[in-house]
Amino acid sequence: MSWLLTEEHLEDLARGAAVLGTGGGGDPYVGRLLVRQAIRECGPVTVLDPAEVDDEALVIPTAQMGAPTVVFEKIPSGDEALTALRALERHLGTRAAATMPIECGGINSMIPLVVAARSGLPVVDADGMGRAFPELQMETFGVYGVTGSPMAVAGERGETSVIDTGADNKRMEWLARGITIRLGGVAHIAEYSMRGAEVKRTAVPRTLTLAHTVGRALREARERQDDPIAHLGEVLAGSLYQHLRVLFRGKISDVERRTEAGFARGRATAKSFDGRHELDLVFQNEHLVALVDGEVRCLVPDLVCVLESEQAEPITTESLRYGQRVTVVGISTPELMRTPQALAVFGPAAFGLRHEFRPVEALTTAES
Amino acid sequence: MSWLLTEEHLEDLARGAAVLGTGGGGDPYVGRLLVRQAIRECGPVTVLDPAEVDDEALVIPTAQMGAPTVVFEKIPSGDEALTALRALERHLGTRAAATMPIECGGINSMIPLVVAARSGLPVVDADGMGRAFPELQMETFGVYGVTGSPMAVAGERGETSVIDTGADNKRMEWLARGITIRLGGVAHIAEYSMRGAEVKRTAVPRTLTLAHTVGRALREARERQDDPIAHLGEVLAGSLYQHLRVLFRGKISDVERRTEAGFARGRATAKSFDGRHELDLVFQNEHLVALVDGEVRCLVPDLVCVLESEQAEPITTESLRYGQRVTVVGISTPELMRTPQALAVFGPAAFGLRHEFRPVEALTTAES
Repeated sequence: MSWLLTEEHLEDLARGAAVLGTGGGGDPYVGRLLVRQAIRECGPVTVLDPAEVDDEALVIPTAQMGAPTVVFEKIPSGDEALTALRALERHLGTRAAATMPIECGGINSMIPLVVAARSGLPVVDADGMGRAFPELQMETFGVYGVTGSPMAVAGERGETSVIDTGADNKRMEWLARGITIRLGGVAHIAEYSMRGAEVKRTAVPRTLTLAHTVGRALREARERQDDPIAHLGEVLAGSLYQHLRVLFRGKISDVERRTEAGFARGRATAKSFDGRHELDLVFQNEHLVALVDGEVRCLVPDLVCVLESEQAEPITTESLRYGQRVTVVGISTPELMRTPQALAVFGPAAFGLRHEFRPVEALTTAES
Repeated sequence: MSWLLTEEHLEDLARGAAVLGTGGGGDPYVGRLLVRQAIRECGPVTVLDPAEVDDEALVIPTAQMGAPTVVFEKIPSGDEALTALRALERHLGTRAAATMPIECGGINSMIPLVVAARSGLPVVDADGMGRAFPELQMETFGVYGVTGSPMAVAGERGETSVIDTGADNKRMEWLARGITIRLGGVAHIAEYSMRGAEVKRTAVPRTLTLAHTVGRALREARERQDDPIAHLGEVLAGSLYQHLRVLFRGKISDVERRTEAGFARGRATAKSFDGRHELDLVFQNEHLVALVDGEVRCLVPDLVCVLESEQAEPITTESLRYGQRVTVVGISTPELMRTPQALAVFGPAAFGLRHEFRPVEALTTAES
């Protein structure tokens, strides 16, 4: 079902997107401010159900790319992603009928809303990762045959680059990352332009709506002083993200983080409150794996989400700090993202991890 | 005067271009092989006198960019620059009437000939540096108001990127260099597209013809066992490069060279045969300054050319070796390249050198 997104939806949406962003996708607060400003200036945004997109309509996804550690310090003006969309339209010699997120997560659930508000285009309620991933070839669009090229990259001074690597989406990522680094570590992009029929075939559907529902559930649970994690589990059980597992409760004891090759890479460790158990997290922008006492408990592309213990507010990888009290949950990704083709592109091996993928619901039993 | 370039011209042309390339512009031998192959397959190339270019004709210069140290090891197939030209044509929605070199030097006097042979286009007898420079904003085209953007960059796998930084040619260089590094340190480009009238106003004219004349003069002097340097001086005296000064004769005693940020940077030292004098050279792809016993004798944009002593064969910066016996000459650049606007873009300060520009003919007296 299509719906009209207003300023009132933003807080819940940003929170939910940050949960699904599995620690990445950029700071949700910055993104929320950008959308609020755009909606105040240009009016609300139509969120278009993928089933209602015309098969022939041209959809151009938009996003920000870069290391979240940099995004945090280098606030966009809000025009950059629209500049990228327009550059790609000029290159293609045609106009987009809608935009769409490429991933679900902090700022990248928000950027397409900014583009939509400022251009008057609707935004399709779907995305290409069903979570956040650090690299552009890691999109269900590409897994199922849409090429990322040609893609447009825009910088803060209005510079544009249109990259075309044919069917090689990994090469596209490599070149776009090079430009992003030269643009100061953050850029805005338009890529994977496709027809409505391809959206229906390749996108993870209704993730904007889900993010809003998740964010609202967490807020309402707080307001009622209920257990937010339990509410989150209930909401997800009715979605494509069926299984939620609590992996760990404890205190962050160590964070090692570096910005290298355009990414925020690192590890974090937490200790249980009784001091008897240890959690290890490895991340590249997003969390990739959670180990408890050395055993794998949740693996990419399943979602590892670090939530602040009291309010269940999601914590992004660049905001992890010593001493934070956290509840770490694992969430199963939609089946679309667990096929052999999908795992070849964004399964553990794609990140250099030696663990074979196993679903979170098989690795960790449900709490009673 | 326009003329037809055949395989027979290549050896002299390559040698002369390497002299004017002031140590840079890439390995002339590789470039010569590429042109020979293209001419054998596709026929000779029309070298078009700039005065004969129609004012309205679209000219798209083509080149290779990258660190000469890498070019040396990563031989192009010969199609890359044409791929870049075609990508820019598609972006502009129009076709080129001719191509043109962006610089005079080793491989970059040759690449436009490959493009010309393979496309059937003529090549304009002019360029944008009158020598070689390491960076793309350092072109007389840009100095006198032509914008480098949009430019196309092509990689060896057929990848293309079209960069548009508006009027900011330095930013264009910065982004294109980033892509070039990601492409492995070498790329092929099409940039500074312009009309014939702009060629006449901004280009250094007839440098292909001059390179051929210089190369032939050196060869003929060798064949007659005359002094090649004296012949070189005579040829140049009748050109826009009026003054030649012998700066030093000696033996290379030290070379320090590194490939960093996409450039070959370094220094070389030579000692006179009697051991009493020392020459210092500083280069960034090309030679920037020559000092004799600590005193500046020739400064960018004037040309510092290192020639092997016996045959006066030019030596590129990446080929400098301990023990080579060399004659180092300074050559004055055309006046077009010594204006305040030109010096602002490629004078000593543009390379971080603290010396103020002084013409080589003022710094060094002529030999009797």
